[in-house]
Amino acid sequence: MNVEILCVGRELLIGKTLNTNAHWLAGQITALGGKVIRVTTVGDEVEEIASSLKEIVNRKPDLVIAVGGLGPTFDDKTLEGVADAIGVRLGINQEALKLVREKYQSLSTHGRLRLTKSRVKMATLPRGAMPLYNPVGTAPGVILKRPRTTLICLPGVPEEMKAIFNESLVNLIEAKVGGAYFYEESFGVADIFESELAPLIDRVMRKYPRVYVKSHARGGEGRAGATLELHFSSASRNMADAKGNVVKAVKMMKRILAERRERLLRNPSSQSHRHNLA
Amino acid sequence: MNVEILCVGRELLIGKTLNTNAHWLAGQITALGGKVIRVTTVGDEVEEIASSLKEIVNRKPDLVIAVGGLGPTFDDKTLEGVADAIGVRLGINQEALKLVREKYQSLSTHGRLRLTKSRVKMATLPRGAMPLYNPVGTAPGVILKRPRTTLICLPGVPEEMKAIFNESLVNLIEAKVGGAYFYEESFGVADIFESELAPLIDRVMRKYPRVYVKSHARGGEGRAGATLELHFSSASRNMADAKGNVVKAVKMMKRILAERRERLLRNPSSQSHRHNLA
Repeated sequence: MNVEILCVGRELLIGKTLNTNAHWLAGQITALGGKVIRVTTVGDEVEEIASSLKEIVNRKPDLVIAVGGLGPTFDDKTLEGVADAIGVRLGINQEALKLVREKYQSLSTHGRLRLTKSRVKMATLPRGAMPLYNPVGTAPGVILKRPRTTLICLPGVPEEMKAIFNESLVNLIEAKVGGAYFYEESFGVADIFESELAPLIDRVMRKYPRVYVKSHARGGEGRAGATLELHFSSASRNMADAKGNVVKAVKMMKRILAERRERLLRNPSSQSHRHNLA
Repeated sequence: MNVEILCVGRELLIGKTLNTNAHWLAGQITALGGKVIRVTTVGDEVEEIASSLKEIVNRKPDLVIAVGGLGPTFDDKTLEGVADAIGVRLGINQEALKLVREKYQSLSTHGRLRLTKSRVKMATLPRGAMPLYNPVGTAPGVILKRPRTTLICLPGVPEEMKAIFNESLVNLIEAKVGGAYFYEESFGVADIFESELAPLIDRVMRKYPRVYVKSHARGGEGRAGATLELHFSSASRNMADAKGNVVKAVKMMKRILAERRERLLRNPSSQSHRHNLA
């Protein structure tokens, strides 16, 4: 199941806010067996939201999750952008209005809180959409099921995003994926260049083509104290397969690295740079 | 000056790595007076890199900064994607090869390090591109100047990305921007709903249209302990203008909030929810 994430918020584009939402969502979706193929971040302008969403929908992912821009302020324009992108109108959704009203009533200790324009805004959804209950905040999430791609909108406040995801999206993703598993392992190596590791990774991936092996430099190739992390992962319909293949690939890589180390001990001059990498 | 950032790396799409690179770059570019209009993150496939880059180039930004995928391993495919996207061939760049060779020689304590296939790969650039010196790692950055849009590629290891940015891109961006300044201030408020703040923000922004005011919920609207951050920012050719307008807008907002507080003290029933937000 292919998923795209669209993050909306100027704060992400001026370096004010670190995009932990995309990171959290990507981890959750991957663990559930979905595949995140792209993350796009745009500002709060309707045109930017609509045009990026059009491009996303044209790539025909199974699911799009838009995050941010659902609140009550003037620059919360995600739903306007969604309506533009798919060519439907916005209108007050009675179920969403009920959720917003109940939320503000529960916050009030005496008397009713007025449904101001800013509050009604949070219940104004693209036609055909339904609200998703927000257990911790006031702006409901939004789901819009379409023939090819299901669109989801979540608030950008991390606690609210996570709560709606856990309450409404975990089941939806599991049902769409139909049982897929993701398994990963990693370990560190300190006495080798990434450029020397590259052909070794090739060997392991040729032997275990269902395992993805990637090296991550920590501190930069060839710098003092530099280490490499080797990351192994596999997705499969079957958890035992995913894990079994990763475990075998890790074992093979460790054996290759141990053989290399022994060879260097017998013939130290073959690794002329070893002193830099101690 | 409009800038787009393209981050390349499967680790960003499986929730393994938090995209601190995009955050750092966005902050630096904004501080230099540039405007980041979009951040796109894709995996390590050539087709994904090439197709996302084509879309970016079609939007005609002044500058594109691609990050990640410049290293020596099989899945470092950014330059292949760049060549595909703009329709040029890849070839060994002699200046880049010299940089890579010198780097490995400086890492070697006795004898020469061989220029293996994996190492030559880092000097294989799209035709027309030039390398950017990497002070801390082995893979050079890449710059490709084109009539409308300048393309930059930086390594994904944060220390290397930052070092090349500081060494080669700060001057380039300053020259392109031609002297623009960004100023920001923020303060917190605890006793108000975001939905009540929305019309107040409108008032301030109507008075100071060059200042962008955005509220950020911390902890979710209406939850115990929830606070709001009010963020004011302005970009201008003139630092005194940018700062002056922000300072005036902050002062106006603080005055409006103080007046509201006094009004509530005189007439507590007008804020029926106040007990929840203490």
